[in-house]
Amino acid sequence: MNPLDNIRIVLVSPLYGGNVGATCRAMMNMGISRLVLVAPRSDLDLDELRMMAYHAFDIYDNRTERPTLAEAVADCGLVAGTTARMGLYRQHARTPRAWAPHILQSAQHASAAIVFGPEDKGLSNDHLSLCTRIVQIPSTESYTSLNLSQAVMLCAYELYEASGQFKPVEERHPEAPSELRERMFAMWEKALLDIGFMEEEKAMHMMLGLRRILSRGTLSEADVQIMMGIANQAIWVSGELRKRAE
Amino acid sequence: MNPLDNIRIVLVSPLYGGNVGATCRAMMNMGISRLVLVAPRSDLDLDELRMMAYHAFDIYDNRTERPTLAEAVADCGLVAGTTARMGLYRQHARTPRAWAPHILQSAQHASAAIVFGPEDKGLSNDHLSLCTRIVQIPSTESYTSLNLSQAVMLCAYELYEASGQFKPVEERHPEAPSELRERMFAMWEKALLDIGFMEEEKAMHMMLGLRRILSRGTLSEADVQIMMGIANQAIWVSGELRKRAE
Repeated sequence: MNPLDNIRIVLVSPLYGGNVGATCRAMMNMGISRLVLVAPRSDLDLDELRMMAYHAFDIYDNRTERPTLAEAVADCGLVAGTTARMGLYRQHARTPRAWAPHILQSAQHASAAIVFGPEDKGLSNDHLSLCTRIVQIPSTESYTSLNLSQAVMLCAYELYEASGQFKPVEERHPEAPSELRERMFAMWEKALLDIGFMEEEKAMHMMLGLRRILSRGTLSEADVQIMMGIANQAIWVSGELRKRAE
Repeated sequence: MNPLDNIRIVLVSPLYGGNVGATCRAMMNMGISRLVLVAPRSDLDLDELRMMAYHAFDIYDNRTERPTLAEAVADCGLVAGTTARMGLYRQHARTPRAWAPHILQSAQHASAAIVFGPEDKGLSNDHLSLCTRIVQIPSTESYTSLNLSQAVMLCAYELYEASGQFKPVEERHPEAPSELRERMFAMWEKALLDIGFMEEEKAMHMMLGLRRILSRGTLSEADVQIMMGIANQAIWVSGELRKRAE
C-alpha cells in the first residue's frame, strides 16, 4: 500500500479559512489526502478556503472533524507534533527531513498523524504530550514562525520526496555519444575555418575553447543535431559566397 | 559572504497581494531578503499583502521593481526559472534540491535569481529563454500546480537547507552513559521485585522487556534521572508498607 494514504494532516482549531484551503492544495500537490480538523471554528471563512484550495477542495469536503486531539489521533501509531518553540520537553525535536523515512515506515502498518497547532499559539504542552515525535521545521533564528499552510507544505513535501514516488522529468533524447560529438566538432572546425573566423594555426586553441563551452553540461543528441545543422549551413553559405566571388 | 544575500526572488506580475505577502514571510523564514517584482500590477491588494507578510513586510518595503524580466536579471549570473509544465525545451529541468548546491555556489560570486511566473499562467517561453536553469518542483502528476508562495517556500527552504546555516535544536542533556543506565536497571529490578510486580525467576525475562522499551530511542541523563527517581520511590513505598505490615 501507499504509506501516504495512511498519513493524516491534523489541524487544531485553525483560525483562517485561507490557510485551511492552502493546506488542502499543498496536501494534494504532495499526494496526501486525509485531513482532520480538531474543534474547528464555526466562523471559518469558507469563501477564502475554497479560493485557496483551488482544485483541492475535495480534500476539505472529505475531512473528518473531532472535538479533541486525543480523539483525532486515537487510532494512530505515530503522532508527530510540529512546533516552532524549543523549550523544555521539546529538545528531542528533529527536522521533517530527518523524520520522513521513519514516518513512512510507521505508516505502512498503522495510521500516522502530523499535527499542527492554531496560527497564533501553535501546539500547547497538552497537545504535545499526545505526540510521540516532535518536528522542528528549519528556519532562521530571527523568524521561526511559519505560515500554517507553509509548514504543512514542507512536511508533506518531505514525506512525498522520501516516498520515492516523484519521477523527475527525463530528457527524451539520450546524451550524445562521443563519436557523434566528434563529428560535430569536426564540422564546426571546418565551418569556423570556412567563414574565416579563425586561421589554421589558431584552430586547435579555438576548438579547445569551443569544446569547453559545449562540455559544461549534458549535451543531448538533439543538441548535437542543432549544432551540426548550424555548422552545415555556415559551410554551405561560405561555399556559395566563394563560388560567387570566383 | 552569505550566498543567500546574493539570491533574489523574482515574481513576474503576481496577481494576488496575499501571495506576495506569503512569499515575503517564506523568504524571511529561510533567510532570503531580496525581492524583485517584474511589471507589478497597480491593483495588488496591499491589505492582504500586509496580513500575509506578517512580520516580514520589510521585505516588500525593500523590494525592487522592474518593467521587464530581462531588466530584473540583467546583472545576474545564474537565472533559474520555475515551471510546472514540462514541454519541449523544459526537459532539462531538475528539482530545487538538485539545483540548490549549484545555485549557492554561483551566488558566492554573482547575483543569482529564482524566477516565478504569474499564478494563472506561469513563466512563458519568452521568460524561460532568459533562464539558464529550469526548476521543476516535485508534485503528484495529478496536481502539479502549486500556490505561488508555496513554490517560493520550497525553493527557499531547499536553498536554506543546503546553506548549512540551520542548527537543529540539541538536547541539553547528553545521552546517558552505560554505567548510569545499568544503575537505573538495577534499581528498577529491585523496585519491580519489591512491589511484587515479578518474581525472582521471571526477573531476567521481564528486565529484558524493560531494556527493550527503554532502548528504542536515545535515553538522556535527564531521562535516566527521572526513571531512577521513580524506582527509588517505589522501593521506599514498598519498604514502608512492609514495615507497617510487620
